[in-house]
This record gives sequence, C-alpha cells and structure tokens, in this order.
Amino acid sequence: MLPLKKDMKLMRSLQQKKFRNETGLFIVEGKKMVEEAIASNCEIHSIYTTDPEWKGEGSEAFLIPAREMETISGLSTPAGYLAAVFQPQNKSLTSTEKFVFVLDGINDPGNLGSIMRTADWFGVKSILCTPDTVDAFNPKVVQSTMGSIFNTSVHYLAESAIAKWAVENGYTLMGADLSGADLFGLPFPEKTALVIGSESHGIRDGLRAHIKQFVHIPGNGKAESLNAGVAAAIMVSQWFRTKRN
Amino acid sequence: MLPLKKDMKLMRSLQQKKFRNETGLFIVEGKKMVEEAIASNCEIHSIYTTDPEWKGEGSEAFLIPAREMETISGLSTPAGYLAAVFQPQNKSLTSTEKFVFVLDGINDPGNLGSIMRTADWFGVKSILCTPDTVDAFNPKVVQSTMGSIFNTSVHYLAESAIAKWAVENGYTLMGADLSGADLFGLPFPEKTALVIGSESHGIRDGLRAHIKQFVHIPGNGKAESLNAGVAAAIMVSQWFRTKRN
Repeated sequence: MLPLKKDMKLMRSLQQKKFRNETGLFIVEGKKMVEEAIASNCEIHSIYTTDPEWKGEGSEAFLIPAREMETISGLSTPAGYLAAVFQPQNKSLTSTEKFVFVLDGINDPGNLGSIMRTADWFGVKSILCTPDTVDAFNPKVVQSTMGSIFNTSVHYLAESAIAKWAVENGYTLMGADLSGADLFGLPFPEKTALVIGSESHGIRDGLRAHIKQFVHIPGNGKAESLNAGVAAAIMVSQWFRTKRN
Repeated sequence: MLPLKKDMKLMRSLQQKKFRNETGLFIVEGKKMVEEAIASNCEIHSIYTTDPEWKGEGSEAFLIPAREMETISGLSTPAGYLAAVFQPQNKSLTSTEKFVFVLDGINDPGNLGSIMRTADWFGVKSILCTPDTVDAFNPKVVQSTMGSIFNTSVHYLAESAIAKWAVENGYTLMGADLSGADLFGLPFPEKTALVIGSESHGIRDGLRAHIKQFVHIPGNGKAESLNAGVAAAIMVSQWFRTKRN
C-alpha cells in the first residue's frame, strides 16, 4: 500500500507548529521511538518506513522509498521509520506530585527535550511552561526526549496562571538563579515548583515576583553559567536525593 | 582591509577535522566567544565580522559582507563574528587534580561541549577521551562549550594509555553504568577518574576491565537512560558536594 500525495504533504507540514496545532498531530522518528509511540496510549495517525522487514508491532506501515522518506523526515540522516501521532488530549495538570518543573521561555528544543527526559528519569510528570517556551511537539524536542514525550505532560500557561496554580495547590516556587542560596545546603519545601529560565535572559519579572526562594549550584571553576538542561538536572537530582528517604 | 579568497577558503576548510589538524586552527563564532578567544592565552589567526561598529578589543578584524560570512560560518544563522584560533599546544595532562572525566566514544558534539562547560563550572580541568570521541575543536563542540574550550583541556588517548595513566597517578577509575552502586550512597575515592560512555554503547570492554567501581544515578521514573551530558553533570555535582567540605 502506498501513501497518497496529500499524506506526504501533511507529514512535511508537521515540521511547523501551526500545522501541528491545526491537526493535533506530531512526528516521531526512529525505530525505537515509533515502537514506543505504538506501545503508548497515543493514537497513531500513520506510519512510514523504508524497511521491508519491519513488522511495525502489528500496526500497518506504508513502505516508502528512501527518497520519499527524505522529503518527510526532519532528520539530516533519516532513520527510516516515521510516525504521525495524535497529541494526547486533556492531559490534566495534577497537583499531587511533590515536584514540578516550571520553564520560563526556554527556547532551545534540545534543552526542553533533555529536561523532559530527565524529569521522566526522576519520576517528575508535569512540566509547566510560559507561553513562549518552545513547543513540546516540535520534532527536535520530541527526538531529544528519547521517548519521554509519552511519559511526561507539558502545560503552557501565562505567568500569572502558573503563580496562581502554585499557590492554590500548595507549591513553593523556587527559582534557579546565580544570586540564590547554595543548592547543597538548602532543604526543599514539601511541594516544589522549580523555575528554570533560559540561558539568555534567566527568570523574567513575570515569574520572578512570585518566587519564594532562589537557589544556585555552587562551583569553583571559570564557566559563567551552566546549560539550562544541565542546571535543571543537577537541581532535580538533589531534590530526589534529599526527598526519597 | 579585505580578506583574500584563500583566507575564506581556509575558514571554510576548518569545518573539517582533517584541515583543523593540518593547520592547528579552529573556529569560534559569536561576539562573546570571539572576545573570549582574544582574552584567552590562545593565539589568534584572523577575525571576521559583519559589524562595522565592533572594535574587536584591539584586535584587527576583517569587515566582510553578510553573504561572505554565510559562506564561512558553520551556524545556520551566522552570528556576525568569527575567529580562527590556534589550538593550544602542549597542554600537558596534569595529575594533581582530584577529579578528571574520561569519555569513552562520546560522538555527539553537544554532549562533549556540555561536559566541557559543566567541568569548567565545577573546576574540573582535564578531560581524557578515547580516540573515537568527537574532536573537541569541532565547531559544534566549541560553540556548545560557551567559552569553556579556553578553560579545559581535552586529551585523546588509547584505552590502555588511559588506564595506565590512572594507575600511575593514583586515580581510581569509576564508571557510570546502570548496573552500578547508588551514586547518592557512595563515597568518592581520593582521586576520581569518572568514565562516561556514549548513550548508544555505554562503556566498552577496553576501559570496562579497568574500572574499580561502577555507579548509577537512582530514579523512579520510566526513562530508560539519561543524556550523557546530563549524567556526567549529576555525577560531578555529587562529587563536588561531597568533596568540597
């Protein structure tokens, strides 16, 4: 069975946020990622492969030539397996978790993907984002989550709504900032909402006013800052270390 | 003053390792990075900018049109500032530091750059790499170090030479591995050489046989692994936390 021209056009369009929003679809690539999509709760729209041997875990896949795959893949070296997946709908923002990330204008797809993967490692399920944070269904974000896109939920809210939600649900807003207290000497609150700003502008005024405790990662080298995904990871690892017992 | 055609050709060639090795040069891009290169101990070969206002911190820069910058830049959106810098020569591998990273076949440039930046944050100066680890002067590595390329030194050695160096200088080889002991319950040795493998193959047999202690990062989520740069950062942050007092 061969895909229609309009299917291929649809696949190409999903590189753009506008069309992802309109269709509610997103793209995953790579054998493992496609298999994880099939195994997840997400509904699959369509699957494409260049591999005639691949059985697609029982799902029907379009077998397409490599030159066609190149036209729909967002990777510089297409993996040969691509699926269009429906974005999970109505993932509600639960307030029973002890730790959530809040991302303030993180615009690097690799950083968001890395934070989602790290969150998923430590059992953190919810990530709140200011509206200008990069789209979690951006193909570069999806690929760098390495499958954690299916285990975490990302919610885009205005700064004021994030602050209101935190207060109403008993979360203390902490903020990663060079001016903050020493991460390694600080007890975490009972329910932590940790705000991470972007590397270029840090945490902006909209959220800054609501933060109860700033925290920084001590170091004695010469680097002026850490990668945002790395800073988020070091901080959540400390939270996990101090809270799990 | 305008650059010669052969200079532009040379700049383009430095995207390739072969020509970086032949010339001993590497490329840095971005205003801040170029200014850090000038302020560093590295010798500058030549500087190019599209910004007529920029004074280059006293260094002479070729003012070139944006379309020329596009031909020599490795960035999808050229920053407008580019320098060719001589690679530091004869950086000797010191053995007085309490912590060194050992990277086994890390081939993602962003991961190496991130590890160099994190190392520089925590005051770790030396990074040993197996010969198939990505070149530290690869433009993508350089850019993701955010200047830490000038504060860290990377040494490429065969596995057996790394193991020999560690033994002779009193380092205990630790390895990041899912089978290892709990990071948060483990004392670090007096002198630690922490081996990080690539995400695809982990630590390979060549180094594995020499490792005295494997260690893993505990988590209770669903992700199967962490990004190599993230795992390295969480581990070195624990070392720093337990050793600084």
